[in-house]
Amino acid sequence: MFVVMEESATEAQVQAVIDRLVNRGFTVHRSTGVVHTVLGCVGPKEEMDPRDLEVMEGVKECHRVMSPYKLASRSFKPAGTRITVKGVEIGGDMVVAIGGPCSVESKEQIEVSAEQVAKAGAKGLRGGAFKPRSSPYSFQGLGEEGLGLMRDAADRYNLFVVSEVMDHTQIPMMSDYVDIFQVGARNMQNFTLLKELGKSRVPVLLKRGIAATVEELLLSAEYVMSGGNYDIILCERGIRTFESYTRNTMDISAIPVVKKLSHLPIMADPSHGTGRRDKVIPMARAAVAAGADGILVEVHPDPDRALSDGAQSLYPAQFEDLMRQLRMIAAAVGRTI
Amino acid sequence: MFVVMEESATEAQVQAVIDRLVNRGFTVHRSTGVVHTVLGCVGPKEEMDPRDLEVMEGVKECHRVMSPYKLASRSFKPAGTRITVKGVEIGGDMVVAIGGPCSVESKEQIEVSAEQVAKAGAKGLRGGAFKPRSSPYSFQGLGEEGLGLMRDAADRYNLFVVSEVMDHTQIPMMSDYVDIFQVGARNMQNFTLLKELGKSRVPVLLKRGIAATVEELLLSAEYVMSGGNYDIILCERGIRTFESYTRNTMDISAIPVVKKLSHLPIMADPSHGTGRRDKVIPMARAAVAAGADGILVEVHPDPDRALSDGAQSLYPAQFEDLMRQLRMIAAAVGRTI
Amino acid sequence: MFVVMEESATEAQVQAVIDRLVNRGFTVHRSTGVVHTVLGCVGPKEEMDPRDLEVMEGVKECHRVMSPYKLASRSFKPAGTRITVKGVEIGGDMVVAIGGPCSVESKEQIEVSAEQVAKAGAKGLRGGAFKPRSSPYSFQGLGEEGLGLMRDAADRYNLFVVSEVMDHTQIPMMSDYVDIFQVGARNMQNFTLLKELGKSRVPVLLKRGIAATVEELLLSAEYVMSGGNYDIILCERGIRTFESYTRNTMDISAIPVVKKLSHLPIMADPSHGTGRRDKVIPMARAAVAAGADGILVEVHPDPDRALSDGAQSLYPAQFEDLMRQLRMIAAAVGRTI
Amino acid sequence: MFVVMEESATEAQVQAVIDRLVNRGFTVHRSTGVVHTVLGCVGPKEEMDPRDLEVMEGVKECHRVMSPYKLASRSFKPAGTRITVKGVEIGGDMVVAIGGPCSVESKEQIEVSAEQVAKAGAKGLRGGAFKPRSSPYSFQGLGEEGLGLMRDAADRYNLFVVSEVMDHTQIPMMSDYVDIFQVGARNMQNFTLLKELGKSRVPVLLKRGIAATVEELLLSAEYVMSGGNYDIILCERGIRTFESYTRNTMDISAIPVVKKLSHLPIMADPSHGTGRRDKVIPMARAAVAAGADGILVEVHPDPDRALSDGAQSLYPAQFEDLMRQLRMIAAAVGRTI
Repeated sequence: MFVVMEESATEAQVQAVIDRLVNRGFTVHRSTGVVHTVLGCVGPKEEMDPRDLEVMEGVKECHRVMSPYKLASRSFKPAGTRITVKGVEIGGDMVVAIGGPCSVESKEQIEVSAEQVAKAGAKGLRGGAFKPRSSPYSFQGLGEEGLGLMRDAADRYNLFVVSEVMDHTQIPMMSDYVDIFQVGARNMQNFTLLKELGKSRVPVLLKRGIAATVEELLLSAEYVMSGGNYDIILCERGIRTFESYTRNTMDISAIPVVKKLSHLPIMADPSHGTGRRDKVIPMARAAVAAGADGILVEVHPDPDRALSDGAQSLYPAQFEDLMRQLRMIAAAVGRTI
Repeated sequence: MFVVMEESATEAQVQAVIDRLVNRGFTVHRSTGVVHTVLGCVGPKEEMDPRDLEVMEGVKECHRVMSPYKLASRSFKPAGTRITVKGVEIGGDMVVAIGGPCSVESKEQIEVSAEQVAKAGAKGLRGGAFKPRSSPYSFQGLGEEGLGLMRDAADRYNLFVVSEVMDHTQIPMMSDYVDIFQVGARNMQNFTLLKELGKSRVPVLLKRGIAATVEELLLSAEYVMSGGNYDIILCERGIRTFESYTRNTMDISAIPVVKKLSHLPIMADPSHGTGRRDKVIPMARAAVAAGADGILVEVHPDPDRALSDGAQSLYPAQFEDLMRQLRMIAAAVGRTI
Repeated sequence: MFVVMEESATEAQVQAVIDRLVNRGFTVHRSTGVVHTVLGCVGPKEEMDPRDLEVMEGVKECHRVMSPYKLASRSFKPAGTRITVKGVEIGGDMVVAIGGPCSVESKEQIEVSAEQVAKAGAKGLRGGAFKPRSSPYSFQGLGEEGLGLMRDAADRYNLFVVSEVMDHTQIPMMSDYVDIFQVGARNMQNFTLLKELGKSRVPVLLKRGIAATVEELLLSAEYVMSGGNYDIILCERGIRTFESYTRNTMDISAIPVVKKLSHLPIMADPSHGTGRRDKVIPMARAAVAAGADGILVEVHPDPDRALSDGAQSLYPAQFEDLMRQLRMIAAAVGRTI
Repeated sequence: MFVVMEESATEAQVQAVIDRLVNRGFTVHRSTGVVHTVLGCVGPKEEMDPRDLEVMEGVKECHRVMSPYKLASRSFKPAGTRITVKGVEIGGDMVVAIGGPCSVESKEQIEVSAEQVAKAGAKGLRGGAFKPRSSPYSFQGLGEEGLGLMRDAADRYNLFVVSEVMDHTQIPMMSDYVDIFQVGARNMQNFTLLKELGKSRVPVLLKRGIAATVEELLLSAEYVMSGGNYDIILCERGIRTFESYTRNTMDISAIPVVKKLSHLPIMADPSHGTGRRDKVIPMARAAVAAGADGILVEVHPDPDRALSDGAQSLYPAQFEDLMRQLRMIAAAVGRTI
């Protein structure tokens, strides 16, 4: 940590900061410049809140040197993490596509979905059984029954299953049905849930919160990893900005940023990222072009009759077409799909 | 709902939209203008997702007329809601101050805190027993023991108790200790928690998420209210913007906005809103000047030794001073404190 | 325009709104619903500020139906605008690459730059002669001399010239040197400048302001077009969000959004959009994958010695490599480069 | 400046950074920690772009120690700047109110406005002669004639005149009419204009851009000050955030932040900050409660007939009422109005 003192800081103020740091176990190196005095501090763990120093008299600013996350950082595993789910490697050379409806609605709907996405080249089936709707008056999902339907459909077409866990109490039950737990954007900082997922050995697809920085996303991954579950897949799905034409603004640049900071695979979800079918296709292409390890796309056999998020679900033929384009883009960046 | 068609929309496109609306139970009024055709639609419940129409060919845009919340809207209770907690009315003429440390740390710490805030004029005691820390390596709170210490301290100084509930499974246990459940910003859209709080009859202080619009805040209140618990106090605590000098940007204008849209009381939390002690005082004054029904302020007997958020905790003497200023500002807006 | 009245609006309030609209020349259609009264209004030009109605008693909200821009809208020219500059068509099947240094620094530097970008496949040369630096103490550019050097270098390698105009007084002088006037993000709403450019017949590359919505970008294009200059190329270059890891957040989704709303070509500038060389390449790929009509990239013969923005300038070999990847991505979306 | 190397940085990478710094005239102090190597660098001017180092191999991050502004910083003039305009001190004990219409529309309108705001206690008259409208089809102002009318009206009621300068070419002409040049939010980084204002000796009221950080606002002030004009008044008028209920989000906390970082006076403009009359009053109160040195409020004799921004203009009686409330709030913070 570095503490930069104000130009006008008095000797007593400098000393007060040094005393505080020493009391907290830091070794302090003082460097007196022409304009500013700077204190470099090394501690056993460096976990002091920088604001505790910033509010002291005479302090201009304070910078942490260590990243607050360790297990999730690239330096922890420079080669990159590869996670194998039902024989499919995520984080390797292949870009992995996951498709399926927003919600599981019926046996027939999920079976047709599985068949269609598998045929187009997807490796995983997505679908919600518990829907976190922002209105209490909307469709809330089929629950455990929906999970069973999804498991059967996925097995028939050799797909892995991804579904959202809403609450830590659902973990044991859901473990019987899913291959990957999805943590939704709203739960990215549900620390109770993250801690419990850390005890599981089922991989976790962790979506970035709409107001979360990349650093906070990595810190949430760290929460799970610190419990012993290292199989985390990150997912960009749009952040909230002043632009309201699209539901969210997909931060495509987060993909190369995460690749640099962390060893964890990163996917993109252009369906939630844009909220509109006609924007899903270009944004899926953009994500793969930017280096994403996979995409998560909503596809529905009949989007016009979907019980939720129909507007952002692709028609099956659109998904096939998208997969064809993605094959060429993956090749351009040295990958397959 | 209104659907505005593109200038270039064909008759077949207009008809397709009308058909879809009629199939969903809407009555449609068509108005053909010089430039645009506009469809006005009235339905039994108006719960169609506007995006389902916006993605149709020939549609320019779509506007909802009804607010998605009902119980939380001002028109549901034009006179405004007043909630009485341990004899103190929230939402009435008096501006209610709630003070206390970020975390309950020890019996002595919480007792001294209670004494100090009560003496300065606060009516409620705040303090966390379960800390939602963004790093898994930080202090996590005293748990139920902390709640017991806080209850005792509050009773001694005739204060009501506000503490954060992190998870729905904590509700029954916490009901024995707290007078108001606080829902933190990160949990504003934890719908499982909101639903369970709807079954409780303990008032809820609902903090605005850092990326939540005012409409979403009211929709979260609606979630709780739709379960039968009508005693909701809203709380502005800062939103995330591009300005990073302060931890968050307090949206003071949300206070008059909420007052217009809803009958629920609204408080402000300048401690989390700014993250720095030297900004807490001016922002607490600003909130009361803008019409807040109360303030929630972190005060610690010894902020330099606080186990969490010391940098944003006031010294007891600062809190007393603040309360003196707030008395004059409350008078300027026709209220007491 | 539509005016939605509050549930509780009185007859007198409804009448006051109707009177005001009629006085302003609108024809008003009243529709009385179960819950809300809605007024549909058609006027000769529909230029009333919706807020003038929203602040009236009893009004809930007000929606404009007409886009505030006309000449820039897709419906004005459904087939799309193609602009030919020095024999190169922008907005057609070919994705057009423009490269060059941030600032023109010397005769040798700009000539080497022109040679390198032309060899890699760029069609245009970019370079700044007047630098809008946020610090008054930084390098401010070579001025007219720099423009002359750039013109010569471009001519030698058969490239068109793009350079930023900072102020309306520079237009006549610059017209002798440039093929496209670039309007920087900070000047997107410099209406004096936009008006004067409307009188010119030199094409304009208009960058989106870092806090501008897509609608505002189109309105700025409209400003120029309303003066008679229809050759506008839009350019996405990043918006300001809470994420500060990259300088700005490139809004890649703005590319398909603009394509839908407007007939004007849209390019992307990943250099300013990201601010860091290692992010420029993936974001250039993403922009082309999302459908951009061109890219604007900073390339410098020796970025480590650049007088400005060296950190975001590509090495010549990186630019060549990028162009090779873009050829494959352009093919994937049915275009050439 | 401090450069923090990656955990995995090689000795060659460290040496490359040191070489580059030394070549640029820096003295480098190397500190090798358990995890990170940190380089502290002191240079004669410290004007290197930190990104030039951040893109080097093995570099984790880079922090500037010196503020990029000097003349505008609090340490340059710890006692604070007081500017006297027509006998009124701005930045002193008195909170200064400036009122008037958005645009000067007629002789009668501006005279009545002047009389009304003077009577209520305002010291300055505001009004626009050149209107920067985002649509090219809106009312564009009376120009120089409007300035003459405003000058006459102000003189009759002993008020100083504030009006917006849109372009550097207007400075000489406007100097005959105005006491304070207002620089609008859109021009905060119009560096040509700022430079020319630096040569003037008329005080400048510099509004914060809607996407500008506080640091950028101070850097723009520095631009003017570096030309020799030290009489700058800053003005908060709202920033752009995801919340769209109000036109902008007023960043009230910027007021105490600026007070700490700079010696310049800071005012607030709640009319543009909120865009709606009913929010102007609470936000004006909040600004004064937070420590603003003055307020700038739109007041119109007949807002319903205003040619621009009527929705955010107060009725004269509302302004009087506001001034009465502000007197009490000013007293609460130890000031007068």
